[in-house]
Amino acid sequence: MEKTKEGAVLLLSGGMDSATCLWWMRREVAGPIHALSIDYGQRHRVELECAAHLAGRAGVPHKVVGLDLAAIGGSPLTDAGLAVPAAREDRQLATVVPFRNLLFATLAAAWAETLGLAAVYLAPVKDDYRSYRDCRRPFYDSLEGTLGLGATREGRWTLHTPFVDQWKTEVVKLGLELGVPYELTHTCYEGKRPACGQCDACAERLAAFAANGVPDPLAYAAA
Amino acid sequence: MEKTKEGAVLLLSGGMDSATCLWWMRREVAGPIHALSIDYGQRHRVELECAAHLAGRAGVPHKVVGLDLAAIGGSPLTDAGLAVPAAREDRQLATVVPFRNLLFATLAAAWAETLGLAAVYLAPVKDDYRSYRDCRRPFYDSLEGTLGLGATREGRWTLHTPFVDQWKTEVVKLGLELGVPYELTHTCYEGKRPACGQCDACAERLAAFAANGVPDPLAYAAA
Repeated sequence: MEKTKEGAVLLLSGGMDSATCLWWMRREVAGPIHALSIDYGQRHRVELECAAHLAGRAGVPHKVVGLDLAAIGGSPLTDAGLAVPAAREDRQLATVVPFRNLLFATLAAAWAETLGLAAVYLAPVKDDYRSYRDCRRPFYDSLEGTLGLGATREGRWTLHTPFVDQWKTEVVKLGLELGVPYELTHTCYEGKRPACGQCDACAERLAAFAANGVPDPLAYAAA
Repeated sequence: MEKTKEGAVLLLSGGMDSATCLWWMRREVAGPIHALSIDYGQRHRVELECAAHLAGRAGVPHKVVGLDLAAIGGSPLTDAGLAVPAAREDRQLATVVPFRNLLFATLAAAWAETLGLAAVYLAPVKDDYRSYRDCRRPFYDSLEGTLGLGATREGRWTLHTPFVDQWKTEVVKLGLELGVPYELTHTCYEGKRPACGQCDACAERLAAFAANGVPDPLAYAAA
């Protein structure tokens, strides 16, 4: 397959979806790939270590930028005083940091512009967009236009979301084909090692591996 | 005059334009006003102190959120290794942090959403938009749409830029009428006290006061 896509910055969270996107980009993207992770005061800081390990394994440069979302608060992902909702509870609304993906995508675009690039890859998946409006393609279409208007110099900006119409199960299927080292990825909202296996994120992850008939290489706490 | 405008978050830099906007909002806005400043690793950190003093004087709550733009770099405003261009040099392009206003406006929107508000005020002025594409209204129009699509819940977002079509000279004229305490504001790119009087920002400020026939209450270093 011919690689034709331009170089880009990938938002690498350390989770399964962006890890899969990184391995997919290694196959598809001809230009340089730079991975960016955001240190936003997340409780599950092990994600940042995972992102560094994944970038190292993939052989791409990795950068961490700080963002003090904990100061804005309102989310149990950053506020240690709030409980993380279990999978059965009313979904993920309570885990939203307002405009988190807009901030992350814009930081990635800023880093891309500094590098002379004009493309950003993100890995929202179809499972996300029932609860998260900023995981939907119309949002990213609009942001592409905003970036084009706000960039230092006139020019087209591209936000690639290759998995936005795929379920997590399909993304894991692709990742297994690509040889993504899922043992290096992190998912648990509780930030635990071994993973809690109980939170919404763990439940989704386990379901995605089960649907592919493959055991999850991660360790989980006994139920 | 009847106040009808909804409560909002104001991006308060500590400079003249946003200070004027704060005093203008005290006259025009009926709902609560919250001031937000971004600690982005600026060399001129005295700005953040000025913002706190201005908010205190205006009697509005003030919050500072951290953003590690220095990690992205590329600008003498955050990189101590780069020289600040003098006023005569080729304008302000070299002082741009990519997508800085997009990041700041989005942080303000995130804080607004946390507060239950859906409006942000910013104070770009006409002088800015020759060099800064993200000081122009089409950019903010586009961002309003992006915010509406990315917010946690569906709804209209408003980005107010009341001075976008006014020259700095006109903004200072309004501020003098409103009694803005300009002695509490900061402008100098070099971050000096007394101000350097030489950099592009000082030059613009001095010209704005001169055009209004009023002495600038700030202290300047001898030329």
